[in-house]
Amino acid sequence: MPSLHDAARGRILFGGDYNPEQWPEEVWADDVRLMEEAGVNSVTVGVFSWAMIEPRPGAREFGWLDRLLDLLAAHGIGAVLATPTSSPPPWMGALHPETLPRTEDGALVNYGSRQHFCPSSPVYRRYAAALTEDLAARYADHPALTVWHINNEYCTHCWCDETAGHFRRWLGSRYTTLDALNDAWGTAFWSQRYDTWAEILPPRRAQYMRNPAQELDFKRFTSDALMECYTAERDIVARHTPHIPVTTNFMPLWSGQDAWAWAEQEDIVSVDVYPDPTDPHGGQYNAMLADMTRSQARGPWMVMEQAAGPVNWRDVNHPKPAGLNRLWSLQAVARGADALCYFQWRQSRQGAEKFHSGMLSHAGEEGRTFREVRRIGAELALIGAEVSGTEVTADVAVLHDWDAWWSSTQQGRPSSLVSYTELVQTWHRGLWESGISTEFARPGGDLSAYRMVLVPQLQLLGDAAVDNLVAYVRGGGTLVCGFFTGVVDTDDRIRPGGMDARLRELFGIRTVHEWWPLDAGATVGCDGFDGTLWSEELEPDGSAETVAAYRGGELDGLPAVLRKGTAWYVSTLPGPEALRGLLGRVAADAGVRPVLEGLPPGVEAVRRGALLFLLNHGRSPAAVELPGRYVDLLTGEAADGGVELERYGVAVLGDVRA
Amino acid sequence: MPSLHDAARGRILFGGDYNPEQWPEEVWADDVRLMEEAGVNSVTVGVFSWAMIEPRPGAREFGWLDRLLDLLAAHGIGAVLATPTSSPPPWMGALHPETLPRTEDGALVNYGSRQHFCPSSPVYRRYAAALTEDLAARYADHPALTVWHINNEYCTHCWCDETAGHFRRWLGSRYTTLDALNDAWGTAFWSQRYDTWAEILPPRRAQYMRNPAQELDFKRFTSDALMECYTAERDIVARHTPHIPVTTNFMPLWSGQDAWAWAEQEDIVSVDVYPDPTDPHGGQYNAMLADMTRSQARGPWMVMEQAAGPVNWRDVNHPKPAGLNRLWSLQAVARGADALCYFQWRQSRQGAEKFHSGMLSHAGEEGRTFREVRRIGAELALIGAEVSGTEVTADVAVLHDWDAWWSSTQQGRPSSLVSYTELVQTWHRGLWESGISTEFARPGGDLSAYRMVLVPQLQLLGDAAVDNLVAYVRGGGTLVCGFFTGVVDTDDRIRPGGMDARLRELFGIRTVHEWWPLDAGATVGCDGFDGTLWSEELEPDGSAETVAAYRGGELDGLPAVLRKGTAWYVSTLPGPEALRGLLGRVAADAGVRPVLEGLPPGVEAVRRGALLFLLNHGRSPAAVELPGRYVDLLTGEAADGGVELERYGVAVLGDVRA
Amino acid sequence: MPSLHDAARGRILFGGDYNPEQWPEEVWADDVRLMEEAGVNSVTVGVFSWAMIEPRPGAREFGWLDRLLDLLAAHGIGAVLATPTSSPPPWMGALHPETLPRTEDGALVNYGSRQHFCPSSPVYRRYAAALTEDLAARYADHPALTVWHINNEYCTHCWCDETAGHFRRWLGSRYTTLDALNDAWGTAFWSQRYDTWAEILPPRRAQYMRNPAQELDFKRFTSDALMECYTAERDIVARHTPHIPVTTNFMPLWSGQDAWAWAEQEDIVSVDVYPDPTDPHGGQYNAMLADMTRSQARGPWMVMEQAAGPVNWRDVNHPKPAGLNRLWSLQAVARGADALCYFQWRQSRQGAEKFHSGMLSHAGEEGRTFREVRRIGAELALIGAEVSGTEVTADVAVLHDWDAWWSSTQQGRPSSLVSYTELVQTWHRGLWESGISTEFARPGGDLSAYRMVLVPQLQLLGDAAVDNLVAYVRGGGTLVCGFFTGVVDTDDRIRPGGMDARLRELFGIRTVHEWWPLDAGATVGCDGFDGTLWSEELEPDGSAETVAAYRGGELDGLPAVLRKGTAWYVSTLPGPEALRGLLGRVAADAGVRPVLEGLPPGVEAVRRGALLFLLNHGRSPAAVELPGRYVDLLTGEAADGGVELERYGVAVLGDVRA
Repeated sequence: MPSLHDAARGRILFGGDYNPEQWPEEVWADDVRLMEEAGVNSVTVGVFSWAMIEPRPGAREFGWLDRLLDLLAAHGIGAVLATPTSSPPPWMGALHPETLPRTEDGALVNYGSRQHFCPSSPVYRRYAAALTEDLAARYADHPALTVWHINNEYCTHCWCDETAGHFRRWLGSRYTTLDALNDAWGTAFWSQRYDTWAEILPPRRAQYMRNPAQELDFKRFTSDALMECYTAERDIVARHTPHIPVTTNFMPLWSGQDAWAWAEQEDIVSVDVYPDPTDPHGGQYNAMLADMTRSQARGPWMVMEQAAGPVNWRDVNHPKPAGLNRLWSLQAVARGADALCYFQWRQSRQGAEKFHSGMLSHAGEEGRTFREVRRIGAELALIGAEVSGTEVTADVAVLHDWDAWWSSTQQGRPSSLVSYTELVQTWHRGLWESGISTEFARPGGDLSAYRMVLVPQLQLLGDAAVDNLVAYVRGGGTLVCGFFTGVVDTDDRIRPGGMDARLRELFGIRTVHEWWPLDAGATVGCDGFDGTLWSEELEPDGSAETVAAYRGGELDGLPAVLRKGTAWYVSTLPGPEALRGLLGRVAADAGVRPVLEGLPPGVEAVRRGALLFLLNHGRSPAAVELPGRYVDLLTGEAADGGVELERYGVAVLGDVRA
Repeated sequence: MPSLHDAARGRILFGGDYNPEQWPEEVWADDVRLMEEAGVNSVTVGVFSWAMIEPRPGAREFGWLDRLLDLLAAHGIGAVLATPTSSPPPWMGALHPETLPRTEDGALVNYGSRQHFCPSSPVYRRYAAALTEDLAARYADHPALTVWHINNEYCTHCWCDETAGHFRRWLGSRYTTLDALNDAWGTAFWSQRYDTWAEILPPRRAQYMRNPAQELDFKRFTSDALMECYTAERDIVARHTPHIPVTTNFMPLWSGQDAWAWAEQEDIVSVDVYPDPTDPHGGQYNAMLADMTRSQARGPWMVMEQAAGPVNWRDVNHPKPAGLNRLWSLQAVARGADALCYFQWRQSRQGAEKFHSGMLSHAGEEGRTFREVRRIGAELALIGAEVSGTEVTADVAVLHDWDAWWSSTQQGRPSSLVSYTELVQTWHRGLWESGISTEFARPGGDLSAYRMVLVPQLQLLGDAAVDNLVAYVRGGGTLVCGFFTGVVDTDDRIRPGGMDARLRELFGIRTVHEWWPLDAGATVGCDGFDGTLWSEELEPDGSAETVAAYRGGELDGLPAVLRKGTAWYVSTLPGPEALRGLLGRVAADAGVRPVLEGLPPGVEAVRRGALLFLLNHGRSPAAVELPGRYVDLLTGEAADGGVELERYGVAVLGDVRA
Repeated sequence: MPSLHDAARGRILFGGDYNPEQWPEEVWADDVRLMEEAGVNSVTVGVFSWAMIEPRPGAREFGWLDRLLDLLAAHGIGAVLATPTSSPPPWMGALHPETLPRTEDGALVNYGSRQHFCPSSPVYRRYAAALTEDLAARYADHPALTVWHINNEYCTHCWCDETAGHFRRWLGSRYTTLDALNDAWGTAFWSQRYDTWAEILPPRRAQYMRNPAQELDFKRFTSDALMECYTAERDIVARHTPHIPVTTNFMPLWSGQDAWAWAEQEDIVSVDVYPDPTDPHGGQYNAMLADMTRSQARGPWMVMEQAAGPVNWRDVNHPKPAGLNRLWSLQAVARGADALCYFQWRQSRQGAEKFHSGMLSHAGEEGRTFREVRRIGAELALIGAEVSGTEVTADVAVLHDWDAWWSSTQQGRPSSLVSYTELVQTWHRGLWESGISTEFARPGGDLSAYRMVLVPQLQLLGDAAVDNLVAYVRGGGTLVCGFFTGVVDTDDRIRPGGMDARLRELFGIRTVHEWWPLDAGATVGCDGFDGTLWSEELEPDGSAETVAAYRGGELDGLPAVLRKGTAWYVSTLPGPEALRGLLGRVAADAGVRPVLEGLPPGVEAVRRGALLFLLNHGRSPAAVELPGRYVDLLTGEAADGGVELERYGVAVLGDVRA
């Protein structure tokens, strides 16, 4: 199977989305000149070109794209060629309104923006397949072609009648019989029993709360329906070019696609990464996305999009201070990226994203933004051969699962303040600040390689996953599990006792009397720390140690943190320092060590292959002591016993071979 | 006429909604075993069983219900049997989309939740009547049957075309001629004059503010249209079982149903009661709902639903601390409830309310929740014979009216910060904290039995109601009236002068120059207290005493509180302490006494029949001095001269007969 | 051409909207009696009378209007006669649903409020024209008729299919070819290229951000479509009565109508003015609206609506304290108004605005509100002859432009916290607090008469406007320009470099590296002041002086305020005091003087013709020193060397002729 390695060939891919159709062709020459100056070796083309290629139904205008790819090839720049199917031309919506999505309320989602297609529409799929076929046939042998990029940021949800029929077929295949569906959905509640398949609808606007199992299945279905769109196009291009790797770009921490399942269908896993430059935890967020994507990719991965400066979709869009783009770029490489791309090469002058930065901003080649891009390109060229294709390893896994996520976002739960993604980020932060390397894993996956496994929260856990966790602990693994885990099964049905009995036994809990969610800003005293967000009224069974008890309030004296052997249960959310302390202590017991001991605050150390990356996320310089002799590949200078990092500074250290 | 007494028969009914269709039949035996353990003597069945009974149009599946009722009868548990018409099966919406409601925007409200029926739909009504007919015929003589429960929490609003026609017929009957309607609605304003009946619509989405009289009539109509659904089903069951009392459960302080009018159509008045366990005024809120429902019932009433633990529809859903369920349950009994039921018996494992507590929670029979339920059941059995059927009396009435409420919630009023229900609760709180027993009454009702009448606010007052208030004062009654009262007539037409002339005369007001609403958080100085929310620029006519004047600001020196004989007008909202002080002083002048003098803060005393209930709403123990010798029916212990109440503790004291 | 002068004839028009159709005819006599008492000489009739005049399609009921106009004429009260086309009768929507607007979501906007017409509907336009024709023919020679008032507060947006066709015709006329449209809209972005005109839609609900140029054109189109409705009716009445001036009333600072363009189509420019009585900057806001409307009118203008007391559409609607109505009324006259009218004469008892005040409030003729109205009427009669028709002059212009405004409100911009209207008001406030007279002007207009020109912000500037500003400075003018100006061209296309090159040259800016918007509440240190809302990373070209630099943070040392000769660029928003200081200093350098030196805070001085108005916006009395001998026209008393103003007091001073 082709992989990112086939495109990178010992380099780090560097570049971005390139939409030259927005510019007169005389600008193109300037583009490639500046790309070469910046060390760009890969650009993504065609993402939004459907209307240029097929200006009217069935037409094909490939001339401009021929000239573009020839130009790229002539300059040795590889093309990540997109199927332009994420944004159908206006004629499609005008001619075939049934290809347009409808909201839960039945309102039509018009063209005039992007991603205005119903993933279940056969008409849309037919047009998309025909265009993909012709595109693949035409460029299969083009020397510029290095990667196929299918569609873009799949994210469209639809509640139309076509979708309803498709949803019913998907349900038919999942449940076979209506009785099984009625049982799984618990339709005895509120008189929702379905008597015929035809009665079943997507969860549309209703008078009050909707059926949570129906909502869960609709989320599963939508991820699958979008994936069908993806695999249909992937199969076409793969038929033409079995040697060219295929990807589609994920949005970061996006609930609409089960990335674990999608990743299995990709040759390259790629993601779009947009931390807020003013987010004090932006560096950790960037690290988390890297760890997550690397885990999905099971190896090197691709940053398909990041921003060289500000984005334009926040309320207030902050630029990146000098050095931050470089810091976060090299951080992604440190954590396994072999391709580092931006949206987009040249900032648009028109359209909805003209205030979204580009590598070449409105300020042009003299702009600070481009100067920094040029530096990054040069540095990637310096380190590419030593980095590309190498691995990052970790002793710790954080469990992450879409079913559990979807289940946790439903209406009518104990606390709407609990955010699955915030919990994942908070727990990951505890490890990151302790300097511990981390991966992500699926609850049902093979965990035997890890010394420690964390579960920030998995409200939904299937039987196999529960057994997997129990077996992991029985096999000597250390498990730290956050609150409200194992509450429902795969049908979103509450486990007897409110928590799976096997897990209760694992943690030494006899009875879960009540969940006590906390109000916004409220805390609950515990031995040695304050809990936030949640607490639980647990009755232990005597087999576990109460590591910390609640103090004061209604839960006074009851266990907040339980430990039974190497299984830990944390029934509240400790503050950041307390959580870091707890995880650090458990990790140490489990034999997990940080990458480098004694780092100054804000400095991150990552080992990739034979290299040691040091990244200073602080706004002040930092001195790092080193346990040996190194050379900094970026400067060529020796770093014996220590190195000085400037604000946002980075060192890429190789061992000095004797 | 049948009454709650026929079902209670000297006991307090205790139980809850029971939805065994959600469970395998083998669980039922366990249910009745635990019910017996908990002293459950009444369960509500069938509320959401339409799809079980009529799985497809016209089908009837009564077997399971036969078995269920037989089982209940065999264990001496009474059945409150519901017509399951609040949640039609999916087949109805699929087959007859015109039975589904439409929003103001014209969007369809789908099935997939509950209460998805247009109350004006003849198709829905026909199906509902047919099912009710068969249900009543089948179980008329069943020994388990004790109460009919029609539908559930009627709350559906609809703006569809069917509703439009129904609304026009309702208007035709109210106004007879279009001229009368045009006059009542003031359609000369903004060119809204209707030339034919067919032009009239429900108040749908519009460009700007809508006609307030049309909105008011639409609220009246919707309450009536829902009531037609109720009475149609009630008439059917009553024909079959004239001896069985009928009820439908109100939502607490719900604007959609004029509970005074509905209560006249019920044999039993029942209500669903869900104070927030963390609300510092939860106990007073519970007391207010009890007083309100008892007043509507004109005697003993029924808690149809309360929660043994958390609900699931708040942002953060707090459990009840140990003792609170018992405290609020006994409080309801103290204030006249002869039936104390929960939603629901066994907590659901599936569906939208699986995180809503049950009497038997996910933690099961060993859970704290069930243990407390068992205690309450036992205690109700202890006191039932002495309590059931007895009366609660009060010298004070708070006036409460749906027309006034509806009028007060319209667009384009002086201040959107003024909340009718908050005013009602705030004034009731003033009495409750003073330990004064209270009832609620209608503005046009017989007030002669009361020493004091309070009007927190009645923006709309019809002529008869105005005359009634004037006559009440002329007859020696004490009236305390809040701001912005008597402003509009029954057509929502402003009274000349901005306040009814008879009321101005009653309070000694010559001219209402302006209303001065206050911004959020702002206060206005008055003699001896600070006013909030509102103030008024009043010119007195010299016949009244200015009890307190405004001090500072634009109204400096003008009257804030006016008194003319026994008629008081309060033109602002005093802070809680000041309002309590004012009401206490006026009450004392009117000869109204608290139930018990010298109570510690947080302790409530209520007399019901011959018993004295003491309820400690505080989280610390409290000692209460008693003016005599009592025995606590719950413990059998003597309480001579005083009693000690634990946190959330309750004593039910009977006189020691010599 | 007729003008306001023809209606005013040496007086100040005083009166309000008069809707006697809401009252029995016996009330009319009382109305005119009180009008005469209050000095009312002009009333606006017919605004919402469509359903009274045309109760069913084609009918005409003019009798009541004949009687009304005769009554007014008999009492010497002029009639501003409205075409009642802003609120079609219910029969129109019922009979012709296609005349009703649709929202972006496709939802129907129903009748039952007002302004429920699609401006593109030919059916609506046909009915409106026919009625206007008959109205004009009937009353052309009526002695009461003084002004035509077309429609009312044009503000209806519509996204229906009829609108889509109209929008396409408008676009056809703007762009001629589809290629030109595709180029102007930048449809190469996101594959939005239109292949046929028929594909083009109004910007309806979409999946993500919409095309900003399409949105901009739709705003231009809607203003034009509404203006077509206006001019069609205007042309009809003008044909009947070429000597009678025509107006339509603007809403204040309303984005929906390009008031510059509309004003060119009016004989009288009129506006509705509703400052919040509790707004600490209400007086300045009132001044700004006056300056803006006077500038649009190029001379005397008309307050078509203001409120004698509270309005009813704010969350909390505050009355006007005693004296404030008079203060703001005389302020409008000082700033050029020759007509001062209210919505409305007699406060309604019914309908959506019954809590909106009237000149004759619910309290009636003894109410404080009417007493103050009477005083104002008397005073206007005193000063009318000396004031009416005279001019107000200014040395300073603030530039204001609808295209720039519309461009600034789009999705996906650097900061959603930036409000165009707040910036305009903040800069105007700097001048107002310095006592400097101000006008408003268009960016492309003749600026040669001004010593100083301010640009609070003009994100969009066409080429001619840019050249105009450059020429103004080259010609010796002083220009002070706020941030983010000159960023896009008339197609909303970013200027190369992110800011027009001519402007960069004008201000001495080499490169705009990045825009740095600030978070809410954040500030950025600058030499001598703190900046808010925005900052910019500018690289000067060495030709300009850095008047103030940023201090601290990422922009440390970079220019915050640049000056190159008489061209100033302010790249942040200084706090109010700093902005006032800066503008005052630049004004002084430019030879601009305040109306009167040494005024106490809160006292405003305005010269109109030969008169000096002094207005005390403070709540305490103020003493003003005067540079000469005056007489106060309101009191007839001498004001030698000084005058004492009471709270909210006003003096209208004439020179004492020797």
